[in-house]
Amino acid sequence: MELKLPEIPEPSRQHRLAAQEQLDRKTKPIGSLGRLEELAAQLCAIQHKVPPDTARKRILVFAADHGITEEKVSAYPREVTAQMLANFAAGGAAINVLARLVGAELIVVDVGVAAEPVDGVKNCKVRWGTRNFAHEPAMTVEEAQQALDIGIELAFEAAKEGVDVLCLGEMGIGNTAAAAALLCLLSDAAAEQVVGRGTGLTDAQLQHKRDVVAQAVARHREWVKTPFEALCAVGGLEIAALAGSMIGAAAGKMPVLVDGFIVTVAALVAVKLAPKTRGALIFAHRSEELGHRYALELLEAKPLLDLGMRLGEGSGAALASLFVEAAGRILREMATFAQAGVSEREEEDAT
Amino acid sequence: MELKLPEIPEPSRQHRLAAQEQLDRKTKPIGSLGRLEELAAQLCAIQHKVPPDTARKRILVFAADHGITEEKVSAYPREVTAQMLANFAAGGAAINVLARLVGAELIVVDVGVAAEPVDGVKNCKVRWGTRNFAHEPAMTVEEAQQALDIGIELAFEAAKEGVDVLCLGEMGIGNTAAAAALLCLLSDAAAEQVVGRGTGLTDAQLQHKRDVVAQAVARHREWVKTPFEALCAVGGLEIAALAGSMIGAAAGKMPVLVDGFIVTVAALVAVKLAPKTRGALIFAHRSEELGHRYALELLEAKPLLDLGMRLGEGSGAALASLFVEAAGRILREMATFAQAGVSEREEEDAT
Repeated sequence: MELKLPEIPEPSRQHRLAAQEQLDRKTKPIGSLGRLEELAAQLCAIQHKVPPDTARKRILVFAADHGITEEKVSAYPREVTAQMLANFAAGGAAINVLARLVGAELIVVDVGVAAEPVDGVKNCKVRWGTRNFAHEPAMTVEEAQQALDIGIELAFEAAKEGVDVLCLGEMGIGNTAAAAALLCLLSDAAAEQVVGRGTGLTDAQLQHKRDVVAQAVARHREWVKTPFEALCAVGGLEIAALAGSMIGAAAGKMPVLVDGFIVTVAALVAVKLAPKTRGALIFAHRSEELGHRYALELLEAKPLLDLGMRLGEGSGAALASLFVEAAGRILREMATFAQAGVSEREEEDAT
Repeated sequence: MELKLPEIPEPSRQHRLAAQEQLDRKTKPIGSLGRLEELAAQLCAIQHKVPPDTARKRILVFAADHGITEEKVSAYPREVTAQMLANFAAGGAAINVLARLVGAELIVVDVGVAAEPVDGVKNCKVRWGTRNFAHEPAMTVEEAQQALDIGIELAFEAAKEGVDVLCLGEMGIGNTAAAAALLCLLSDAAAEQVVGRGTGLTDAQLQHKRDVVAQAVARHREWVKTPFEALCAVGGLEIAALAGSMIGAAAGKMPVLVDGFIVTVAALVAVKLAPKTRGALIFAHRSEELGHRYALELLEAKPLLDLGMRLGEGSGAALASLFVEAAGRILREMATFAQAGVSEREEEDAT
């Protein structure tokens, strides 16, 4: 089967250079805003404009359940996914607090929670949770494509509605197991390198989760030939939708803030399916979940924050969106040396 | 002479524990918000209340000139200090942009710029720049005490006006040289360990700056016996005022966000003069300026951000103030498991 994916433009080298040239005329020592300056130039390259637009931020949280929870790989029961959706809808979760703080819109999308739809959550359910990948592929080709398409479509919709920056998060009990298995299938990683404690497993529970993932990966390696097949084999509906939303955002020249471990593995899927997606990705933070560092290295990603967080929900992406806005505003609002009548640096002595 | 400094209360262990207990009931895996949770507990300990107040943020930028600029230790001419004050007043500098972004009040305080007062900048001038510490002490005892008092007074004023969080920044051409010399006198550091490029010196200029600082430090070591004398010998008026504002904030149970190298050296002064100040300090970021890492280690400080910035002005403190607000809001706004009807983690098997 051939995947239907949108065309993605290259980041614009011309706009990146124009941004850097403008930054160097602002009233500050050259390069003294560090990562904020790199970020400003990257935003201009992605959006093909100088200054970039960064005021309107939207957080998409994709939620789904996972058949692998039958194997007892999570510290929390599966019901928590649906319960947390109600918490999101009521405004009481961490991502609600952070969305309000940074002034971002928050849309929670049910792509496959194993429960009745929740009011206030966008219902795009593909099925009631994936199958248990310990025994069979988690998704059919059609289900994975459908979830991918939901992501692409929601990114297109955001771009059309004037969103400047997309922040991505997820909710799904069991999804660190799925993401770790997927990371193994997409790389040379062994389970013990990338299977972590998720929401807080004990040592014994962690060992069990590693065994479950290692055995499942060994079984699926026998038939999986492509990244898309890996996604079907052990991925999740929210992971597929996340990958799709990155591809859609990149196609629409919209920068994407990638959150923690699960979203980063989805980014790896997106980049394997559509390599040019990489240009639109900004990595928000390094989470504490074991496999995240490994996934970031595969993507040659240098995240903005390192705060020991491991919550998911898009919490890191929401916090980092402030830096994206700061970068945009520096280009937009700071005075140049000439405008402010500030002397530039003294001529160097010929030494 | 005896310094007149206010009483500082201990951070409250009781409120720290109450905060941690509340955090553990919020709808998230225990500890999963990492540094934000530590920060939330620290804020409660400083303010002696749960939840903490974090909405009203004030940035104080202390500005002054330095006699040591006669020795050509900076990439920019001394006039830039006054020119940047006009830029601050007009709203065109990086700190203006960041203050607007994070919703903080910005007050720029002239404690010793070598130029006529600027409209829109609070005039607390002690003298027109310090003396050249290559040849004589930078400040008299009275001048240093006066600058310290200005800082204490402005912190008290902020507390009285209902400010919840104080962010500190500085502006002063030549002040990385003063801060480096002060750091040497307050520790065992050698000049080459802590003298950096400031606003952007070349290799040859950096070597010259190191020589100037090393010679001055050697000279002043002969008479300096106390931290306050070190401040008088090679410090700056803005550094003294910064130290004072930290002492005043700590006395008023107000958390302080410490910016980059210069503010961190001022923090070292404050902690040497009044050790309990340390409890009120939150370190915003690790700057690129060479001596910053060393100063942070002396204070056993673990900054929140590491973005390769080296601008000063309070830019790192302004950005990090958002994390302080996030920490406060998590305690204030997040639902508990019981409130949200979310299941808690499953009982562990006895293994």
